[in-house]
Amino acid sequence: MVPTLEFKSGALLLLDQRVLPHTVTFVSVQTARACAEAIRDMAVRGAPAIGCAAAYGLALGAFEAAREGSAEAQEGVFQAAHEVLANSRPTAVNLRWALERLSKLRARLVVEGMPAGQIAERLLAEAHAVTEEDLASCKAIGQHGAPLVPDGKGILTHCNAGGLATAGYGTALGVVRAVVASGKQCPVFADETRPWLQGARLTTWELLQDGIPVTLLPDVAAPSLLRSGKIGCVIVGADRIAANGDVANKVGTYGVALAAHAHGVPVMVAAPWSTIDLRAKDGRDIPIEERPSTEVTHVGKARIAAEGVSVFNPAFDVTPAALVSYIVTERGVARAPFSDSLAAQGRLG
Amino acid sequence: MVPTLEFKSGALLLLDQRVLPHTVTFVSVQTARACAEAIRDMAVRGAPAIGCAAAYGLALGAFEAAREGSAEAQEGVFQAAHEVLANSRPTAVNLRWALERLSKLRARLVVEGMPAGQIAERLLAEAHAVTEEDLASCKAIGQHGAPLVPDGKGILTHCNAGGLATAGYGTALGVVRAVVASGKQCPVFADETRPWLQGARLTTWELLQDGIPVTLLPDVAAPSLLRSGKIGCVIVGADRIAANGDVANKVGTYGVALAAHAHGVPVMVAAPWSTIDLRAKDGRDIPIEERPSTEVTHVGKARIAAEGVSVFNPAFDVTPAALVSYIVTERGVARAPFSDSLAAQGRLG
Repeated sequence: MVPTLEFKSGALLLLDQRVLPHTVTFVSVQTARACAEAIRDMAVRGAPAIGCAAAYGLALGAFEAAREGSAEAQEGVFQAAHEVLANSRPTAVNLRWALERLSKLRARLVVEGMPAGQIAERLLAEAHAVTEEDLASCKAIGQHGAPLVPDGKGILTHCNAGGLATAGYGTALGVVRAVVASGKQCPVFADETRPWLQGARLTTWELLQDGIPVTLLPDVAAPSLLRSGKIGCVIVGADRIAANGDVANKVGTYGVALAAHAHGVPVMVAAPWSTIDLRAKDGRDIPIEERPSTEVTHVGKARIAAEGVSVFNPAFDVTPAALVSYIVTERGVARAPFSDSLAAQGRLG
Repeated sequence: MVPTLEFKSGALLLLDQRVLPHTVTFVSVQTARACAEAIRDMAVRGAPAIGCAAAYGLALGAFEAAREGSAEAQEGVFQAAHEVLANSRPTAVNLRWALERLSKLRARLVVEGMPAGQIAERLLAEAHAVTEEDLASCKAIGQHGAPLVPDGKGILTHCNAGGLATAGYGTALGVVRAVVASGKQCPVFADETRPWLQGARLTTWELLQDGIPVTLLPDVAAPSLLRSGKIGCVIVGADRIAANGDVANKVGTYGVALAAHAHGVPVMVAAPWSTIDLRAKDGRDIPIEERPSTEVTHVGKARIAAEGVSVFNPAFDVTPAALVSYIVTERGVARAPFSDSLAAQGRLG
């Protein structure tokens, strides 16, 4: 499997997800600002992967800060790095979580009087730790989630919550990988996931690279597929999960969950604990990013819609907790009522 | 408004909907077989427009038959024309309805001893009548439907049930046109309608040509839009409506109806009476066409999905009657229980 992100010789290498599956190429990022741009432009995407990339981006910011002479200038450069990264995408909470983790560590080291160069090295090590923990979380999510998936029926997934959306292995696709490894016979179905086509471009590529067969469908066909009785479980990732279990995820997840509910198919949300935002009471506290209209009016350079049209293009939607059967993190399986089960898992941290 | 189809100098001219909105060009059809190909390849699409095109196609078949010497050969050519047209697309019942109308007329004229050349002329006149009646039906549907649409809230439509899907004016968009003409303030939202993008390519073009502003959204964003409270009514067309009110329409309609139902938004189905198939007891009696996988794996010539992927690409889905608020035809407004209201309207014919 090609790595989603890798730190090498002072640069963060991001597998460019904008040009997959045609082209396998890497974006080399050497500053916090360049990292923020790569996140905003979706060279890297997927909440956990964004968290890892932001951690490396902020470590790069610490190296930039260390090149300044005064403590005040160092602080200014570092805070600017934090801000540009924090503003790169609003919905995925892992971004904010990773930035806060590194910023708190830095604040402590500054108080302890550690020189700026050493602090930068220490933050880079912390970014490595964030990434390694994410990979370990994905494996644990797979182990917790796989036993809940019924054998002999299909799995439907939306967007890409795979190795490409994480440090590796994946959340929703981590469960798929664990299901396949367990020997269960569960054919995989992937929504194409307009407008960015993460399902068509990334999920099919990633699974076929691992030799896992997959059937692609237009998002609009998911309700028919769910009605057919072929699907035993819907498995998706998440960009932010509120304290009550409301789940912000790639736009379209809500529609899939409504159709799954109508046909008695369970919905599993698989995400690292860093995706849980206990400060958000419910879905209304989660900001929903709107993306550029050209994602809808154009495919590549080709215009598909008439000139002069307005566009509504939210990147995410909120699936209410009532439609969610399981929230699976590295800490275990949470079930309704999620306000209790998530709070209990929170105390494990 | 550019005509969807027009018969001129012995040929059926079809506005080529595969290349809109970039290019406005016509396919010239001079045989029944060429007409069937144009229907299958979606140069013309939309159930009522397919019905009109098939009527002209069968009239062309009658002219082909008239060039044969014997009555037996004429019968063979005509029946072959009927068969190739009937098999061009399976779901839209208007196709079958139009073919049966012309075939029954021909059978009567043959029995009466009318010469084949005159029969062909008479069938062409009947195709004109089918087309004129479709236009009149659309206008009546608009008049019946518009009063049901709440003023000051948005209208969401899926696919293209417009002038481009009919002889003109449209069914769902006919209601939109009548709403706009009535002075109500109802902003129009159009699902892009993957995989063929009828919403993005055709609905936005058609409405903007008429000066009606429209907001385009990816299909996956419709549940969020419906949750927002901005939409007062969903209006869609239909390809076949069963006796119990189950509605086969463009794939994705079922998902929109589920989301509308979850948020208390009424769903109006607008279609000419020829779309009602009282011989189909319910949705299970309606064949659902599957379309080529390249519609999903490619956009134009560009491949978007990984090589080796399987595809599920149904062209239609069935919205159960329980999710439908109104079925509006030229005969009036049918409400639940549809088995009664549609049967009553059937007796008006």
